[in-house]
Amino acid sequence: MSLSNGRAYLAIPGPSVMPDVVLRAMHRASPNIYEGELHDLTASLIPDLQAVAMSTAKVAIYIGNGHAAWEAALANTMSRGDTVLVLATGPFCIGWGAMAAGMGVHVETLDFGYNMPVDAGRVTEYLAADKAGRIKAVLAVQVDTSTSVKNDIAALRAAVDAAGHPALLFADCIASLGCDRFEMDAWGVDVMVAGCQKGLMTPAGLGFVWFNAKADAARGDCVTSYWDWRPRAEPEQFYQYFNGTAPTHHLYGLRAALDLIKAEGLDHVFARHAKLAQTVWAAFDCWSTTGPLQMNVADAAHRSHAVTSAVIGSPLGDRLRNWCEHTCGLTLGIGLGRAPADGYFRIGHMGHVNAHMIMGALGTIDAGLKALDIPHGRGALEAASNVVASA
Amino acid sequence: MSLSNGRAYLAIPGPSVMPDVVLRAMHRASPNIYEGELHDLTASLIPDLQAVAMSTAKVAIYIGNGHAAWEAALANTMSRGDTVLVLATGPFCIGWGAMAAGMGVHVETLDFGYNMPVDAGRVTEYLAADKAGRIKAVLAVQVDTSTSVKNDIAALRAAVDAAGHPALLFADCIASLGCDRFEMDAWGVDVMVAGCQKGLMTPAGLGFVWFNAKADAARGDCVTSYWDWRPRAEPEQFYQYFNGTAPTHHLYGLRAALDLIKAEGLDHVFARHAKLAQTVWAAFDCWSTTGPLQMNVADAAHRSHAVTSAVIGSPLGDRLRNWCEHTCGLTLGIGLGRAPADGYFRIGHMGHVNAHMIMGALGTIDAGLKALDIPHGRGALEAASNVVASA
Amino acid sequence: MSLSNGRAYLAIPGPSVMPDVVLRAMHRASPNIYEGELHDLTASLIPDLQAVAMSTAKVAIYIGNGHAAWEAALANTMSRGDTVLVLATGPFCIGWGAMAAGMGVHVETLDFGYNMPVDAGRVTEYLAADKAGRIKAVLAVQVDTSTSVKNDIAALRAAVDAAGHPALLFADCIASLGCDRFEMDAWGVDVMVAGCQKGLMTPAGLGFVWFNAKADAARGDCVTSYWDWRPRAEPEQFYQYFNGTAPTHHLYGLRAALDLIKAEGLDHVFARHAKLAQTVWAAFDCWSTTGPLQMNVADAAHRSHAVTSAVIGSPLGDRLRNWCEHTCGLTLGIGLGRAPADGYFRIGHMGHVNAHMIMGALGTIDAGLKALDIPHGRGALEAASNVVASA
Amino acid sequence: MSLSNGRAYLAIPGPSVMPDVVLRAMHRASPNIYEGELHDLTASLIPDLQAVAMSTAKVAIYIGNGHAAWEAALANTMSRGDTVLVLATGPFCIGWGAMAAGMGVHVETLDFGYNMPVDAGRVTEYLAADKAGRIKAVLAVQVDTSTSVKNDIAALRAAVDAAGHPALLFADCIASLGCDRFEMDAWGVDVMVAGCQKGLMTPAGLGFVWFNAKADAARGDCVTSYWDWRPRAEPEQFYQYFNGTAPTHHLYGLRAALDLIKAEGLDHVFARHAKLAQTVWAAFDCWSTTGPLQMNVADAAHRSHAVTSAVIGSPLGDRLRNWCEHTCGLTLGIGLGRAPADGYFRIGHMGHVNAHMIMGALGTIDAGLKALDIPHGRGALEAASNVVASA
Repeated sequence: MSLSNGRAYLAIPGPSVMPDVVLRAMHRASPNIYEGELHDLTASLIPDLQAVAMSTAKVAIYIGNGHAAWEAALANTMSRGDTVLVLATGPFCIGWGAMAAGMGVHVETLDFGYNMPVDAGRVTEYLAADKAGRIKAVLAVQVDTSTSVKNDIAALRAAVDAAGHPALLFADCIASLGCDRFEMDAWGVDVMVAGCQKGLMTPAGLGFVWFNAKADAARGDCVTSYWDWRPRAEPEQFYQYFNGTAPTHHLYGLRAALDLIKAEGLDHVFARHAKLAQTVWAAFDCWSTTGPLQMNVADAAHRSHAVTSAVIGSPLGDRLRNWCEHTCGLTLGIGLGRAPADGYFRIGHMGHVNAHMIMGALGTIDAGLKALDIPHGRGALEAASNVVASA
Repeated sequence: MSLSNGRAYLAIPGPSVMPDVVLRAMHRASPNIYEGELHDLTASLIPDLQAVAMSTAKVAIYIGNGHAAWEAALANTMSRGDTVLVLATGPFCIGWGAMAAGMGVHVETLDFGYNMPVDAGRVTEYLAADKAGRIKAVLAVQVDTSTSVKNDIAALRAAVDAAGHPALLFADCIASLGCDRFEMDAWGVDVMVAGCQKGLMTPAGLGFVWFNAKADAARGDCVTSYWDWRPRAEPEQFYQYFNGTAPTHHLYGLRAALDLIKAEGLDHVFARHAKLAQTVWAAFDCWSTTGPLQMNVADAAHRSHAVTSAVIGSPLGDRLRNWCEHTCGLTLGIGLGRAPADGYFRIGHMGHVNAHMIMGALGTIDAGLKALDIPHGRGALEAASNVVASA
Repeated sequence: MSLSNGRAYLAIPGPSVMPDVVLRAMHRASPNIYEGELHDLTASLIPDLQAVAMSTAKVAIYIGNGHAAWEAALANTMSRGDTVLVLATGPFCIGWGAMAAGMGVHVETLDFGYNMPVDAGRVTEYLAADKAGRIKAVLAVQVDTSTSVKNDIAALRAAVDAAGHPALLFADCIASLGCDRFEMDAWGVDVMVAGCQKGLMTPAGLGFVWFNAKADAARGDCVTSYWDWRPRAEPEQFYQYFNGTAPTHHLYGLRAALDLIKAEGLDHVFARHAKLAQTVWAAFDCWSTTGPLQMNVADAAHRSHAVTSAVIGSPLGDRLRNWCEHTCGLTLGIGLGRAPADGYFRIGHMGHVNAHMIMGALGTIDAGLKALDIPHGRGALEAASNVVASA
Repeated sequence: MSLSNGRAYLAIPGPSVMPDVVLRAMHRASPNIYEGELHDLTASLIPDLQAVAMSTAKVAIYIGNGHAAWEAALANTMSRGDTVLVLATGPFCIGWGAMAAGMGVHVETLDFGYNMPVDAGRVTEYLAADKAGRIKAVLAVQVDTSTSVKNDIAALRAAVDAAGHPALLFADCIASLGCDRFEMDAWGVDVMVAGCQKGLMTPAGLGFVWFNAKADAARGDCVTSYWDWRPRAEPEQFYQYFNGTAPTHHLYGLRAALDLIKAEGLDHVFARHAKLAQTVWAAFDCWSTTGPLQMNVADAAHRSHAVTSAVIGSPLGDRLRNWCEHTCGLTLGIGLGRAPADGYFRIGHMGHVNAHMIMGALGTIDAGLKALDIPHGRGALEAASNVVASA
C-alpha cells in the first residue's frame, strides 16, 4: 500500500526544495522593468552573490541554467584554437570540456575516474610539461553532482602555481555553492560558475559567472554580445544586466533566497550542510557493512556536503527509488552518468534542508531496503540520529 | 547548533500540514457570490462531506472553528433547562459540556479520566437510571485531541440502546474525521461535528455539523437565526448556506482537499493513517522500554490514528519540543489540558502526512532524546522503519 | 464578440478586490497556534482595528461573516423579551432586526424606505414616546449595501440624546468601514459591527464587534460561551481570542490589509474613496440626463462612498450586467433586495480600488449602454475624467 | 492627492499583465526533472507553440529573453564573415543587427525610420543588386516595440522572391506573437523568434526560435553547444530540450498560458487584440485633434495591435507617465529608443488584456491630460466606448 499522500519531498541533487518565501516572492505581478523597485533589487543582489562566493570578483547574471554559465565563462575568455585542460572527476567536467570543444577550443583531459578527486600532483606535472603555455585555462568542478566527489580547489590553484604555469583556474560550483565552503578569492579562482536551483534555493532559470580581472583580461574572439560579461557586470543601463528583458520574477525569488542565507549566516549554512552530510554518511556507513549498498566516494574528506552518490547494483537503484517515491513520497535522484544507471542512486542534501527532512529521507531508504529485502547493515537510523543529537 | 533551516514541519495535532494544492486553490481573486462557479462548487461539497462521514445526514457548514460547530449542534437541539450527559475522556468533551452549560443546559458528566476510553457499561447503567428521560443527548468525542484516547462510537450507541433510552447521540470528530474510520449512519450517530483544519486539510475557518432527522426533530428554543441548520442544509438561496456572505476562499480550498480524499479513496486514507499511527507507536514502544517516556494510552485499540499524546515528565516535554523545533525544524504539540503541561507532548499524524514525514518526525524525537540525555530504549527508528517496510 | 479575456474585475459591493499582498500573506503553511509569531500578530491587530474605527472600544474578532457579527452584538447585550428599534433604510437593517427576533427579542421598526436616510427627528419623537424605556438598543446601518443609502450616525446619537432616552446605539459598518468616515467614539456609538471582506480587503471569513463599557454592562441572558465577547476582547489564553482554533491564514491576510491602510493613512483612505465615489457619480449624473438609468439616492450627501446602487428598469439591469461581464470582464453587483431585481444593479467602489479601475468600470458601463441601445446622456466618461483630474 | 491604492496596472509593452492562473501554476514545488509529469508537460508545449505561429516549423526553447532568441537564431545559421540585411523600423531590428555584428557577421541596413513600415520595393531593389548572393538572411521585426510600427511580413517574403534572391527571411515577433496575426508557413518565414513575457503571458525568462528545414540547412560555424537548436528541437534525452536543467516553473506557467490561448482560440485572440487596439486608436485620434499628442504611426494599417507608441513632446511624456502612475496606479511605457525619451510614451495592449482594462487606461490618460493642462481633443473616451460597444 502507498503511504505517500502527504507533502512530497524531492531529494534529488537539484533542483532542490524551494523555500515557501521564495515561491511567495515570485507570486506577484510583473514589475516595471524601466525604473523603480526592480532596479534597486537587482543591484542589491550583486554584493550578496559576491559574499556567497567569498569574493570581490565581478558577477554576471544570465537567464539560463548551469550550462549557460559554462558557455558564458568560456565565451568570455576563449578564442577558437585555444586550449583548456579538463580535470574530470565525473561526467560534468567532461561536459564542460565538450562545450568548449563546441566553441572551437582544444580540450585536453586528465580523468581521475568517478570515485576519486583530482590528484593535484598530476596537474602540476601536466602543466609543467606545457612549456609553451598552450593551456589557457584549467577547468574543474568543486563537486560533480553525478559522483558527489568534492575537489580541493585551493589545492588545484597550488598545483597550477607549483608548475609556474599562467593558466586561469575555472571552478564549477553549480552543485556546491552555498553548501560546501568555497572561497573564490582566497583560493585563487579566476572564474566561477553556478546556478540558482541548488544551494541558492531558487527555481531553475538563472546562471551566474564570477570573474576576476585576470580572467577579464584573457578575453578572446569567442565572446558575443549576448554572452559578454562586461556590460552585465557593470551595466550603464538596467537592461544591460541581462542583455534585454530582466528575469523579473526570478530576481524576486533570488532576493528572498539570499536573504535566507544572510539571516542564517554563511558559515552557519556551511556548518549545517556539513552536519547533515555527516548524518547521511553515518546511515550509509551502517547500511554498507553488509550487502550491496556503498557510497560512491570512500573517503569522507572527498565527499560533497550537498549530494551523496551511491552504488547498489542493477536494478536495485531503480527499485529502491521507485519504492521510496510510491510508498513514501520521497523522490531520490537517478544514477546520472553511470552505467547501468539503475544500479546507482543519489540523495541531494543541498539548500533548504534540515534535520527532520534528512531523518525522513534516511528513514524512508531504510524502510525501502527492508521492504525490498536488500541486505543491509542495521542501526543506520540510530547512527544518523546520534549525529543529529550532537548538533 | 541549529539544523532547522529548511522546510518547517508543523506536527501539532491540528492545524495540520496544508497541501500545496489547497493553498494554491485559495490564492485567487474573490469570486462572484451571487451567481456562477461558486454556487456550483459549494453544492458539490455537500455529497463529499456526507461521504467522508459515511452518511446520508444533512450537512450545515459554518464559518467558524470546532467550537462553533459544538455550539451549533447544541443550539439546534437544546432548550434552556434540557440536560445532556457528557462522556469525558479528556478536556474537550468537558469543554463541549461547558458550552452547553453556557446556553442554559444542565450538564451531567461521566468522567473516564485521561487514559481510558468510555466504559460503555457505565453509560448503559447511567441511562437506565434515568427513568424520566431527563437526558436529551449524550455527548462524546471520537478522539480527544488532548489525550489521543479514541472511543468506540458504535459501542456507545449500543450502550444507549441497551438502556432503552431515547437520548440523541452526539459525536465530536473534530480531531479524527478523515483519519480514524467513522461511520455516522451505521454507528447510529444523530449529530456529528467537525472542523476543516485537521483531517480535512484546509486552513482553519470552517466548522461542520451533520445531523439526521431525529436530531432535527429535537429542535428546542436555543436555536437562533445564525445557528439554524435548516436553511444552511437546505438553502433556497445561496446566501443561506452561510447565513450571509460565503467564506469564498475556504470553499475553494476545501474543494481541493476533498478532491485529494476522493482521489486516494476514503478506505485508503484510513489505512494510511492506521499504518502511520502504527509506525509512531512502534517507535514509542521502543523508547518507553527505558526511561520516562510513555504513550498516554496503553492499549493500542484505544489510541487514535490521528494524534499521539505522550507523557515524559516535567519539564522534559517542553525541553524536547524546544529542541526539536530549534535544532531540527519540527514543531510538536504541547501538553494541552494536562498539568504540568511541560511534562507532556503530542505529535499529530493527521491529514496530509506520509511515511517520510513520520520517519522524519520520529528521527527528530529520537535525536532529541539523545541530545537531552533523556533515558530511552534504543532501536525505535528501526522498529518504525519495519512498520513502514510492511506497507 | 467577447473582449473579456484579461484580468477579471469583480466590482460587486463585497467581497471586493483582494490585494495581492493579502493573498500572498495567506499562501503559507499553518503556523503554530500554541506559541510564537501568531500570538504576536494577533495581538497587533487589535490597536489597528481600533484605529480603523477611531475608537478605544474593545474589539472581539469572530470567525464568521457580517451576520455572525450581527448575532454576536445582539447575543452579548440582549435578553429574551428585550426590545430593539430598527431604523431601516434598506433590507439589511431589517435583516439585523430579524436576527434579533430570532433570539427572542421584540423588534420595532421605523422604515425610511430605500432611497432616503433615517429621519433623525422621527427617531427622537419615537424614543421620546418610550417613557418606560422599553427600547434597549437602536439598530442602524451606516450604509445599506443594497440601497447605498448612507446614514448620519452622529445625528442618530444626537437624536437619541435629544429624546433623553438611555438606549444603546448600534451601528452596522459592514459595507462602509474603511471607506466612509466613521468615528465610533466621537459619534457616541456603543456597538459597531463589521466584516473583513469589503473595506478591510481580506477574503470573507472574519466578523468584528467593537463595544464600549456601556454596551458591555448591558449584558443579558442571550449570551453564550461562543458569542461571549469578554474573553475574546481580553483573553487570558490565546485560544480565547477565537473561542477555539484561530483562523490562522485570515489573520495573516488581515495583518497585510491593515498594513496597507496604515501605510496610506486612514484620512487618505477616506479621501480616496470620496473622490472615486464622486467620479462614479459624475458619470451617473451624465447618463441619467436621458433615459432610464438613475442613481438610487438622489442627494449626494446621503450616498455611500463605498457602493452605488442604481435603477435602470427590468430587465435592463441584468442585460447590462451580463454584457459587462461577458464582453468586458467586469462583474457588477445584482439588484439585491429590490424587486424586480433585474431592474437594478450596483457597483462597488470599496477597499482596494483606484482611479484606473473606476475609469475602466465606468467605461465598460458606458459601452454597455451603447451596445444595448439603452438611452443615456453623453459625456459621462469625460465628466468622470474631470473628477479624477481634480485629484 | 493619490488615487492609486488599488490594483496596480502595468501597461508597458512587456512584460505584460500576468494571468492569475499562470502565476498560480508557477507557485509549486520543484518537480522531478528526470522523469514523470514535467517530461510530458514539456512535450505538450511544442505543438501549441507551433500552433501559435501557424507553423509546422521546429521549435527550440531557450531559457532567456528575446535577445537570447536573437542570438540563438543567428548562431545556428551564420558563419563569421556572412552578411545579413537589417530592415530597420525602430531600434530593435538595429539591435538584432548589432548582435549579428558581435558574432562577426557583416551587417547591412535599410533604415525606414521610426514611423513607417519597410518599403518592400526597396528591399527587392536592394536584393536584386546583390548578384553574388552575399546576403544570407534578411532580418525584420513584425512589430518594433519602441515605435509600434507593424511590418507586412508576407510582403517581405514576396519582396525577396521578386528579387529572385535566396536569402533566408528572419522575423522577430517578440512584441507581437499572440497579438498580431502571424502565419509563419503561409508567409514564407524561415526563422522566427519570440519571448514569453508579452503575448504569451508568462513571466520573462523564456525565448523561442522556430526554424524550418531551409534555415537548418544554412548552419554555419557560429553555432555552439548551448545555442544548437537541433538537440533542443529533437531531443533524445529530456535535458537536451534546454541543454541542461529545465526552467521548471516557467514551463508550468507557459503551459497555463498556452491553455488560455487554446481555450479562447487563436483567431479570437487576434480579433480581441484588433478591437482593443482600435479602441485605443479611437481615443488617440480624438486627443490628437488638438494639442501635442500624436500616435507615432499615422496609418492604422501599419500599427501594431499589441502596443501603441505616442509622441507628446518633452517633458510631457514623463510628466504624463508619472501622473498616471502616482495618481491612478497605471504604469505606462517609457519612450524607449527615442530622444528625448521624455517626449514619448507607450501603452501596451498585449496578452492578458480586456475591455475594462483598456477603458481604465484610456480614462486615466484622459484625466492626466486634463490634470496637467495638456491641450487635447475632447470626446476620446466616448469614442473609445463606441468601439467597445461595437464588439
